[in-house]
Formats: sequence, structure tokens, C-alpha cells
Amino acid sequence: MSETTGNSTLSTDVSVLGLGAMGSALAAALLDAGRAVTVWNRTAGRSTELVGRGAGAADSVSEAVLASPVIIACLFDHASVEKTLGPAADELRGRTLVNVTTTTPNEARELASWAAQHGIVYLDGAIMAVPSMIGPRAGQIFYSGSRAAYDALLPTLDVWATSEFHGEDAGRASLVDLAMLSGMYQMFTGFFHGAAMVATMGMSAADFAARQAPFLAAMTEELAGYAKVIDGGDYTVAGQQSLEFSDLSHIVRASEEEGVDPAPIAAVQALISRQIEAGYGAEGLPRVVESLRGEG
Amino acid sequence: MSETTGNSTLSTDVSVLGLGAMGSALAAALLDAGRAVTVWNRTAGRSTELVGRGAGAADSVSEAVLASPVIIACLFDHASVEKTLGPAADELRGRTLVNVTTTTPNEARELASWAAQHGIVYLDGAIMAVPSMIGPRAGQIFYSGSRAAYDALLPTLDVWATSEFHGEDAGRASLVDLAMLSGMYQMFTGFFHGAAMVATMGMSAADFAARQAPFLAAMTEELAGYAKVIDGGDYTVAGQQSLEFSDLSHIVRASEEEGVDPAPIAAVQALISRQIEAGYGAEGLPRVVESLRGEG
Repeated sequence: MSETTGNSTLSTDVSVLGLGAMGSALAAALLDAGRAVTVWNRTAGRSTELVGRGAGAADSVSEAVLASPVIIACLFDHASVEKTLGPAADELRGRTLVNVTTTTPNEARELASWAAQHGIVYLDGAIMAVPSMIGPRAGQIFYSGSRAAYDALLPTLDVWATSEFHGEDAGRASLVDLAMLSGMYQMFTGFFHGAAMVATMGMSAADFAARQAPFLAAMTEELAGYAKVIDGGDYTVAGQQSLEFSDLSHIVRASEEEGVDPAPIAAVQALISRQIEAGYGAEGLPRVVESLRGEG
Repeated sequence: MSETTGNSTLSTDVSVLGLGAMGSALAAALLDAGRAVTVWNRTAGRSTELVGRGAGAADSVSEAVLASPVIIACLFDHASVEKTLGPAADELRGRTLVNVTTTTPNEARELASWAAQHGIVYLDGAIMAVPSMIGPRAGQIFYSGSRAAYDALLPTLDVWATSEFHGEDAGRASLVDLAMLSGMYQMFTGFFHGAAMVATMGMSAADFAARQAPFLAAMTEELAGYAKVIDGGDYTVAGQQSLEFSDLSHIVRASEEEGVDPAPIAAVQALISRQIEAGYGAEGLPRVVESLRGEG
């Protein structure tokens, strides 16, 4: 345990701003790895357990920033990052800011630009994990921004998860993160939609999940093949399921007939229809990506 | 090999109507299992390989129906089943019709009702597999309709896949099937959407798939937990990710900013927003199922 001995003294290795479930998990993992940690949270009372495990609790953002050369921001959203760090720009000068708050790519780029203006080294992080995965290092964290900061901090970053650097454009980590999460939320929603459909025949969501989870897990093996077609740019490659065969009108209709809102699967069908109407019905399902690119 | 020796003679065990990729795979698996098989296809020339392996080729639907006590229909859609089997109702009387053509639950119920009127035993099947999975029995087929027919045919049905009976309401197999496929297509579309997003930063779909596939496979483990909450009906259970935290506006915005159509993830966000606006923002993500039930 280290003590904060004064506002201008670097008394700890890392300061963590934001002690929600994720920020707390990040701070705890750093303590477990023997790092000296200062913590701060907008509302009080969140730091008790971490202080008990050796963290120093800062009373203000400035105090937390001045305590360490490396500042981790794990806040609610982009607006809260701006609100929290904006007034502390001077104190942050010369330090490294690792922002793992969920933001859009453009928001990360804005923060990188703001940091550059104030002489702050900026690294953006995007966490592919739930808090319980941080301790066991079961997740992945994507980074982009300062390559030098990433290289220097890697032994610390690796305490949390598998680290992956995606480039000096600070927006890239967020872009990969949001692309991954888009897939996850669409998969979850597909499950919710299916569960609502089978509920009309009295099947429990648990019974449906017992079938759906292994089926979807097996079907993830199709993604590499789809990717090959997309990267090749030739959607007429033989052996593919055609868009016409993938017409989902019957799922949309069945959903309506069973009294379940078809909106999420109707959105998929609309993308398929756009390609069929453009004359590509005999080509493969991955051509849907062209609908999304707005080229269809 | 058996020969069709006359229109009224049951010379084979099973007749397969429809020799698309799936129908051909079903017929081939029956031949491999030592069944005597008659095949028929609307357009000629599809049966050559199967005949070479011992199948009898019928020149008409009537001839195919009269050749066997069990008729498998694996056609394009519900309309083609009606068009193909309607005129053969008399020949089908007393036989068992296993319809594995993809239909909606109500279409399966219609066919079951039509079959009952004509003294035809009806079993509806919904195939959870691609044709290449039929030989190695890697898929699943759901059945509903005549329990007696299912029990009697099980040794034959098990030649294709793992069989599962879902009840005497003929629509149930199709309902479970479409619910499962809804999840699959939404997952695939999530991947296509994510691939389109990262393409804007120059990441290949293959690189994205290498990250997305294992991530989604791991995330299927969340479904059982969501199911438990849905079945319990209490979305306030502790330890859940809240709907407010699951707000996907930033993914929708990022998609728009990168020039990628946000439609499929916007459809998900709309379901989440509906619950938040109804005052349930602090409750868990699986409450999305209430939006789909139209109760939100």
C-alpha cells in the first residue's frame, strides 16, 4: 500500500477514475498484481473495499491525477469523460491517459486530439469482457492511440486481459470493439426473438437456450467462409447458400402470425431483399454486407 | 436396388420428392443405410447419381407416391408442396407423408389438415442442418404431427440426423426451427454488419471473423442465464447488465459515422429503447423479450 503524501507527488503507479463494476475490477486486478493504486469515484463510498485492499482514495480528480503517471478513465460515457477530465487538463499534462470508457471511434479521436493539445499522452482502450472476466484475464482489450504508451504499459495492461494494439488512429480500438459488440447484441436479440416465438407454443426460454446456444456456437464456424467470400469480392463462388434460398419472409410471417414483433428479423430480411431486388438473388448470403455498405 | 414394377406395387421403402441439395442428401443417406428408395424431381436430370447408387427414378409424382409407403417431400416452399401433392391426394391415401420442406407453422398446420381430410398420415419435419451435415448425421431434425408415424419411422429418420419430436400440433417443429434460424440469421447479419464497420479502417473480414467467431461462441454461454431470467419473469434480478447500460446508441451513431447502414443494430436499439422509455431502464437486458411480445 502506498500513501498519497501530497498533491504534486507521484505516490502511486496508476490512478483509476470511475469505480463502477468495471473500474473496480480493473483497480482490483492492479492491486492483485502488486501495483500501487489511487482510486477516485464521482460519488463516494465505492472505494471502501479497494482501500481495504491497499488502494489510496483521492478526494478529487486533480488529486487522483497528480498521484500517478498513468491515469485510467473508466467512466459512464464520452460526456462524463469530458466533464471529469476537462477541468484537470493541466494536471494531466505529461502523464499518460488510458481511456477505457466506451466511446465511438470519433469520440476517441476527439479525446486524442484534446489530449495532444494539452501535452497528454493518449491511449484508447476498448474492453471485450464483463467485469468478472478481468481478474482471471479471460477477456480481450483492444488499444489504439500512442504506440509508445502501449509498449511501455503492456506489462500493466496485460494484468487485465489479452491486449491487442490496433494502430495510432485512436478511433480504431473503439471501432473494432463496437463491431464486435454489434454482432453480440444482434445474436442476443436473435435469441430473445426466438424465445418469444417458441413461448407461444409453451416452450420455456431455458429449453430454447439449451438448443439455441450450441447451435449458434456451431454456426460461428460459418463466419470464416463468409469472410473469405467477402474479402474475395466475388459473391458467385460455388457452394454457397443463395440469397433467394435465404429469403426470410416465412420467418417474418410466422413471427407475425404467432403475435411476436418481427422487427429484428424483418431488418435482416430487408437487407436480403435489397440484394435480390438489385438482381443478385442467385449470389451468396454474404452479399448482405453490400446492403450495409449502401452499395446494393 | 429395387425396381418399380407397377403403379400399385410398393416396390421401395421410401420415395423422395424433390432433389435439390437437401433432398439429394436425404435420399443418398437412405441408400447408404440400405433402404430401397424411389426419387422424383420436377425437372429431369437430378436423379442420375442417385440412380447410379441404386435409386429408382419415377417419371411422375403419382408413380413416386405409389412406389413407397413413406413419402418424403423436400420441395422449395409451401406453394410447391401444394402444387406437387395436391393432384396426388388419392394416391397418398393410407401412406405417410413426411414433409421436410421449410414452411411456417400455419402452413404445416394447413397441410396436416389437408392430409387428415384425405386419409394421409402427416409428419412435419424441420431440418436444422445444411445438406453436407446429413450424411455424417451432424444436424438435428425436429418433427411434429403424427406421434405414431414418428415412432414407427424413427429408425429411418435417425439415418439423417438426431431426431426430436415436438408434439402432435404439426406446426410446432416449424416454429422451433424458425425460432432457431431467426437467431442464426441475426447472428450472421451481426457479423456482416461488424465486418462492414471494420472494413472502413481496412480490416479484412477474415481478420474480423477470427475475432468475432470465438467471441460469439463464448457469448452463447450467456443465453442460459438470460433464459433463467425470462422464465422467472423478474427482470430486476441482481447481477444483470441493465438496459440503460446496454443502450446501443453509440454503436448506431458510430455505424452512421463510418458510412455503414445501422439498420440491423438500430432495430435492436429500438427494442431496448422501448423498454427504457417504459421505465424499465434499470432492469436487465433480457427484458427485450417483452418488447418482442408487444407487452412493452
